[in-house]
Amino acid sequence: MQKQFYIGADIGGTHMRTALVDRQGNIIEAQKVATDISLGAQQAGRRLAEQCRRLVARSIELSGRVASIGLGVAGKIDAGKGRVIFSPNLPPMNNYPLAAELQDQIQLPVFMENDANVFGLGEQWLGAAGAMQNWIGITLGTGVGGCLFLGNRLWNGDGLGFSGEIGHMIIDANGPVCACGMRGCLETHASGRALTEGARQSVTGGTRAGSRLAELCSTRTLTAKDVYLEAVRGDSTAIKLFERMGWALGLTIGNLFTFLGIRHAIIGGGVSDAWDLFIEPLRKSLADHCCMLQESAMIILPSRLGDNAALLGAARFAMESMVRGKRAPGN
Amino acid sequence: MQKQFYIGADIGGTHMRTALVDRQGNIIEAQKVATDISLGAQQAGRRLAEQCRRLVARSIELSGRVASIGLGVAGKIDAGKGRVIFSPNLPPMNNYPLAAELQDQIQLPVFMENDANVFGLGEQWLGAAGAMQNWIGITLGTGVGGCLFLGNRLWNGDGLGFSGEIGHMIIDANGPVCACGMRGCLETHASGRALTEGARQSVTGGTRAGSRLAELCSTRTLTAKDVYLEAVRGDSTAIKLFERMGWALGLTIGNLFTFLGIRHAIIGGGVSDAWDLFIEPLRKSLADHCCMLQESAMIILPSRLGDNAALLGAARFAMESMVRGKRAPGN
Repeated sequence: MQKQFYIGADIGGTHMRTALVDRQGNIIEAQKVATDISLGAQQAGRRLAEQCRRLVARSIELSGRVASIGLGVAGKIDAGKGRVIFSPNLPPMNNYPLAAELQDQIQLPVFMENDANVFGLGEQWLGAAGAMQNWIGITLGTGVGGCLFLGNRLWNGDGLGFSGEIGHMIIDANGPVCACGMRGCLETHASGRALTEGARQSVTGGTRAGSRLAELCSTRTLTAKDVYLEAVRGDSTAIKLFERMGWALGLTIGNLFTFLGIRHAIIGGGVSDAWDLFIEPLRKSLADHCCMLQESAMIILPSRLGDNAALLGAARFAMESMVRGKRAPGN
Repeated sequence: MQKQFYIGADIGGTHMRTALVDRQGNIIEAQKVATDISLGAQQAGRRLAEQCRRLVARSIELSGRVASIGLGVAGKIDAGKGRVIFSPNLPPMNNYPLAAELQDQIQLPVFMENDANVFGLGEQWLGAAGAMQNWIGITLGTGVGGCLFLGNRLWNGDGLGFSGEIGHMIIDANGPVCACGMRGCLETHASGRALTEGARQSVTGGTRAGSRLAELCSTRTLTAKDVYLEAVRGDSTAIKLFERMGWALGLTIGNLFTFLGIRHAIIGGGVSDAWDLFIEPLRKSLADHCCMLQESAMIILPSRLGDNAALLGAARFAMESMVRGKRAPGN
């Protein structure tokens, strides 16, 4: 029998990553390109198809075949129609039939899920979840994504196309305006964008004129990584932004522990590389904001798969969708 | 075969209610006494035993027998030991083995659950839940309780003794101090106590001197019902307190819909009788604070069983616990 491979794709606000993955979860080959969503959804879809074609060709070189493709996309998803319904961080994707188009172009079954949900599937398969039955997953990137595992299964709610959207839980009704249009979402405190916006506002406010952070802001290319590096150098504004991130995450996770009666969370995504800068404020905030549990009972783990979590999870999702006989869009 | 009855008991911050219930959910006889928790947990436990003895005697008159007793108690519960671990609204109950003591005195199996969880079991059995699979239950009383049903089953989380504690989710980290010791819990905005405290503070602040509400406050016997009646009479302070309640409930329910990917909630408890005063602000707040769903998709229903929901749910819990062969405490 031919060796079976799967393609996992992680379509983020900044990068689009794709990988050829075997059934054991080995990444055979991985690629990364800019999402460049400003050029439009169709253009992004075309580049995604190119990436996938390359991986299909690679699978043939290895005397195997790609059985199916899994896409993780930020936003609310209509899996049946292979369509993104609503994506605060990739607005041109709204209503775009990304999976259906890809399937037409590649002639392979394509399954789509929310990017934070596939992050969770990755961590469950090969990552930090281990024997945990009930846990919250959080991805810190351009935005903040989330997922929920209950009884060791990805929770899909009422099948409305979204679940685990922790980034759009409101923690301060008078807080900053979010990409989604509401005010004070977790995302406005705990995302990569919250770091860069926070730094810019602080500089515009005049409090940090003359600092290296102010210089970086004036170049208009400030990234979350810049804010991280300035915090490591001891810039107090940058440090405070990570403290705010930890405070906001602790408050939100504490609220969910209180409501769900659970006590485990896994945090991943690129911005979680700054773990040491936010984990202590996060733990303090958890202790301050969850009256139902002792601090020591609450377990917050970093992603074990790092950058590869969503990629592997998307491949896993493609694999599971074939096993469960899910219909790919339009079939 | 002898007719089987169950006793359901609802131990609230203000009242203790008990009822003899048959397998079809008919209430054969119901009783209500003040909880008077200020006299201590043991004293409250003794009065609970008296109430139960009367209902056992009644069951014998009816040529039947009581198979088991279900207790709904506000707080975090150690079901295995029949003990209340932590009860913000009944502090003397902390660590008191209420179920174990009652079982010793009555010689019948006694099962204990959180009061809002048994409210939910009541609404699921005979109330507003109908065919709903996934929903949030909320009880508005002295405090605010909650429960969660997933796949038509009461969600118990990791079995830590609590779940659905919506009243202690924090919605305003700088808000008023809660009975639990934290700041800005939903309960500080949406409970009977939030109404009376809010009215008192407004009067102390001098803004309402001369009003009937100010008069009532000065008598020190102000109840949530007083605030309700003043709101109905058009008192703007009282009306604002109910608007704040609706706002806070909408924000919290919206956050949970966003995270759980669900869209149904049922609201009960004595204070929910003021439905018309808070439901419009609640719906507006839901629409403002949940970006994942259309307003019309979010269904908020009033309890159908009213005062009897927790009582019937506690009886149902006693019945289900016997069927599932749960161990009563200490057996």
